[in-house]
Amino acid sequence: MRMRMKTLGAMRSHLRAQAQMMMMMKKKIEIFPNWRSDNRGLMAASEPRASGGDQDPNSANLIPPSARFLQKNNSLEEKGRLAGHKNLLSCDNSDRDARFRLTETDFSNLFARDLLPAKNGEEPTIQFLLEMVDILTTYVKKTFDRSTKVLDFHHPHQLLEGMEGFNLELSDQPESLEQILVDCRDTLKYGVRTGHPRFFNQLSSGLDIIGLAGEWLTSTANTNMFTYEIAPVFVLMEQLTLKKMREMIGWPNGEGDGIFSPGGAISNMYSVMIARYKYYPEVKTKGMSAAPRLVLFTSEHSHYSIKKAGAALGFGSENVILLSTDERGRVIPADLEAKIIDAKQKGYVPLFVNATAGSTVYGAFDPINEIADICEKYNLWLHVDGAWGGGLLMSRKHRHKLNGVERANSVTWNPHKMMGVPLQCSAILVREKGILAGCNSMCAGYLFQPDKQYDVNYDTGDKAIQCGRHVDIFKFWLMWKAKGTIGFEQHIDRCLDLSQYLYNKIKNREGYQMVFDGVPQHTNVCFWYIPPSLRDMPDGEERREKLHRVAPKIKAMMMESGTTMVGYQPQGKNVNFFRMVVSNLAATQSDIDFLIDEIERLGRDL
Amino acid sequence: MRMRMKTLGAMRSHLRAQAQMMMMMKKKIEIFPNWRSDNRGLMAASEPRASGGDQDPNSANLIPPSARFLQKNNSLEEKGRLAGHKNLLSCDNSDRDARFRLTETDFSNLFARDLLPAKNGEEPTIQFLLEMVDILTTYVKKTFDRSTKVLDFHHPHQLLEGMEGFNLELSDQPESLEQILVDCRDTLKYGVRTGHPRFFNQLSSGLDIIGLAGEWLTSTANTNMFTYEIAPVFVLMEQLTLKKMREMIGWPNGEGDGIFSPGGAISNMYSVMIARYKYYPEVKTKGMSAAPRLVLFTSEHSHYSIKKAGAALGFGSENVILLSTDERGRVIPADLEAKIIDAKQKGYVPLFVNATAGSTVYGAFDPINEIADICEKYNLWLHVDGAWGGGLLMSRKHRHKLNGVERANSVTWNPHKMMGVPLQCSAILVREKGILAGCNSMCAGYLFQPDKQYDVNYDTGDKAIQCGRHVDIFKFWLMWKAKGTIGFEQHIDRCLDLSQYLYNKIKNREGYQMVFDGVPQHTNVCFWYIPPSLRDMPDGEERREKLHRVAPKIKAMMMESGTTMVGYQPQGKNVNFFRMVVSNLAATQSDIDFLIDEIERLGRDL
Repeated sequence: MRMRMKTLGAMRSHLRAQAQMMMMMKKKIEIFPNWRSDNRGLMAASEPRASGGDQDPNSANLIPPSARFLQKNNSLEEKGRLAGHKNLLSCDNSDRDARFRLTETDFSNLFARDLLPAKNGEEPTIQFLLEMVDILTTYVKKTFDRSTKVLDFHHPHQLLEGMEGFNLELSDQPESLEQILVDCRDTLKYGVRTGHPRFFNQLSSGLDIIGLAGEWLTSTANTNMFTYEIAPVFVLMEQLTLKKMREMIGWPNGEGDGIFSPGGAISNMYSVMIARYKYYPEVKTKGMSAAPRLVLFTSEHSHYSIKKAGAALGFGSENVILLSTDERGRVIPADLEAKIIDAKQKGYVPLFVNATAGSTVYGAFDPINEIADICEKYNLWLHVDGAWGGGLLMSRKHRHKLNGVERANSVTWNPHKMMGVPLQCSAILVREKGILAGCNSMCAGYLFQPDKQYDVNYDTGDKAIQCGRHVDIFKFWLMWKAKGTIGFEQHIDRCLDLSQYLYNKIKNREGYQMVFDGVPQHTNVCFWYIPPSLRDMPDGEERREKLHRVAPKIKAMMMESGTTMVGYQPQGKNVNFFRMVVSNLAATQSDIDFLIDEIERLGRDL
Repeated sequence: MRMRMKTLGAMRSHLRAQAQMMMMMKKKIEIFPNWRSDNRGLMAASEPRASGGDQDPNSANLIPPSARFLQKNNSLEEKGRLAGHKNLLSCDNSDRDARFRLTETDFSNLFARDLLPAKNGEEPTIQFLLEMVDILTTYVKKTFDRSTKVLDFHHPHQLLEGMEGFNLELSDQPESLEQILVDCRDTLKYGVRTGHPRFFNQLSSGLDIIGLAGEWLTSTANTNMFTYEIAPVFVLMEQLTLKKMREMIGWPNGEGDGIFSPGGAISNMYSVMIARYKYYPEVKTKGMSAAPRLVLFTSEHSHYSIKKAGAALGFGSENVILLSTDERGRVIPADLEAKIIDAKQKGYVPLFVNATAGSTVYGAFDPINEIADICEKYNLWLHVDGAWGGGLLMSRKHRHKLNGVERANSVTWNPHKMMGVPLQCSAILVREKGILAGCNSMCAGYLFQPDKQYDVNYDTGDKAIQCGRHVDIFKFWLMWKAKGTIGFEQHIDRCLDLSQYLYNKIKNREGYQMVFDGVPQHTNVCFWYIPPSLRDMPDGEERREKLHRVAPKIKAMMMESGTTMVGYQPQGKNVNFFRMVVSNLAATQSDIDFLIDEIERLGRDL
């Protein structure tokens, strides 16, 4: 079916016509004087209707649906068009004249209530969705275009005051679909392009087209992972994908347990819960008072979610003991053993050790094998937080950095970080089969009926701390299909090569100082930019204070100019430094060069 | 830009041509003999490239990107096309001949690596996304078409064995985009249409078009709620929407705290955590041993997530005390008070009471005001679990069922249930401002830097138990904009009217028995269908056992015929009964009639 859809730019001209339309609407009300008290008379009562029954769902409309539709499509051709259900995306040559009258859709006079399931809602629905897709595909194209800014920064108060008609406030009355489309465009305009080749701000970046398409499908399917009954395909995809991931970890035959959770922090929380259940199952029913005073161990460089889990689950954040690291941010195994012994002497019971595979700031990989030796010696649960570094298991070149991961009892691995899968996509993988259900099941009869006609072992809901669970698997499964394991491997190798390029470029460059020496283990490159004014200043408190303010200033200017984004933070005794990370396949050496030029341009006069 | 895109059906014919294409590819390799050892020579080294730098990200391809592209688009017209960046969705009349050569896209020879950020990836990217949109819009149309089945049921082993070329297994090598599109179609084919007008199986149903469009935009923006820095618009939308929700609860000026979480179970978990923090803040650092033996109270009909939270957070599921209910499933306040007194006498310390607003099975609303009186008397935290019933606050007609909710300390409210917002969308709302951050903050310096250029009070990450957090707000905000509060009100009133229609239809109908008497409080209608063979059987164990098997049998037949879906479960002493719920705006009286006809058709001979 051929059609012409006007752009949003052109649509704005219709706003002017809106007052005129309101006049017409009033006339229509006069034509259908009875619609409000009884609109049944306007519809055939016996046929099944998309919207109807005894009551029109849009009964607060000023115009009944049929009238609204006639008002917009008041030619015979328009009516004929509605009868056809052709592929709207294909614009072929045949039947040209008949279909070319489809011309423009006037969204200024259409509302949500005119879309499906409204009577005659199919055509406006499809046209609305296609208009949205036009906005989105334009956004996608621009995201990869380096002449586009990464962001168009505004302060909260500016956005709250309303930007050129972009009003965030919600009201009682509906807005026209035209306004909705304008709002969507504005939402993207004032957002941040996390897929831009020069967005280096987070561990998750990039915009994978297959993943994006997968996510669009996921939203369209709009189902829930808790039972096979309503998510048969997704549940199986999750099962198969988790098995593949366990194979890559190195557990025999990929056996074990696992689930996708809403992010690495929750995955890490699962690991602590399971460890507690394994050693002290009575805590599930009796509470923490049934266990001795348990302590958890994790690196001072590890993600804060281990501490959060300790606080949430009733261990207490002070009972999460932080381990010292070497200058590269890797746990010192001897320190772990010393702290285990110390805790035991104080009457605490060590339970759990987290080894980080790819720390957030330094990208450090803790020595898993040495930590595993200690865990075996003291009979402790070993968790590997590979939220950031787990992806390296896909790379034959880099997977050695996780050597020993097969000895872990549980592993967190976020495909939404290093592997470019859209947010959210995080897995908790467990070596012991069945333990997730043991830990979390409450056997809710209304959801997990044992007398279903299929094998209810496929229902996943009782393994989770969630009830409803978003379908996070499909986009990842689809990307794996589309790229193959080899495609993820290339992605990872390429990102690591690129960060090595950055490292090589700045390690001896004037005005730069590396936070730690040596080639980064992950894509994290941590460095200070020293403005000329500080280069000759002797080390000391004054210089430290000044240097501490450099990265925030440069970052603020970057954001205001919108050219690129990179993170900074202090760490321990180190004042604010830049943490560069690469996980976006769109980034190239030229983007790295650009970043360095930009830092020097903005920081030169500080 | 005008174009013709073939359907997937037509695409299959291209598979036959693939062997021939491989022959052509080999020839191209000969034309570019050096690509593998050094493909820099094929590209201009100085210009910024979408894919490139020192290394082609697709280096494992058999063909360099440029060659692959030439091979597919080997006419001058094709090259000209690639230079233009026109609106792909608009098929206007001008420039017709030039653009009409766009004809078909052969996805059988395109791979993920050919899409953006690949050089010349823009055109295949857009065409791939549009082909996906064609699949999705076709799915959307069919979902609302009653001649489409709700599902095409297969057992797990059938899907795992592979259905007509739908292979769930993942492999090392990539699949063509044609196969990816076929997989997407199959994924939808073997799934369940939760938006179908005859899908009554879960509390979440329906397919809201605005919500869907919002979710497509969310995936395209692919960002994270943890900081204003990378989600400025979404963070503000969340803030404003939470304020509106608090206003509807009735808290003065909508003041308070809140956050969107990955589902009602997590929202309920938040409520328990906050209550503990309010009364025993030292548990955050010291663990549960710093508090006395705390107990929580919730109805025997309440959602199992309260018990799960009790188990996870270290209280122990046995310390979640279940309250008795009346025959309608509503908590008996006197039982609450008696159990509080009993617990205190046994040396436990009551902490928290959950009142359910809309229970999962019966749709019961606990008497909040009476419960609030008791909570005030004993100084307990009052949480209202309105995951299912919270939506009724939008209805002037039905909001009285939550009278007293303004006295709660916290409220769970899932717009993804009664309000038709796509999954996941759940809010935890808290009366006391700042308590979420107090409870959960760990002040991770690398993420929540205090020295940013904007007001960092807008960063939300430290309030959450998650680190990364999916953008759940946008679809909801957009629906609210598009429908207005009044649109949600109509949605809710209509669904409740429809369940009353069902109730009136079956309450005195032969072969039906209601599980409880009286008009349902929510859209839940609970009933037994009694097959003719059981109607004259005297009540007793044999009849109970037989009746227990009726609903599962009918449900299994329903799923196998794919005509409709409705839930069943036992509850307490009651054997399996059907629980009908309506939350889908697409459902009409005719669908209710259909469901009853279907139950009778399938159950007649049991």
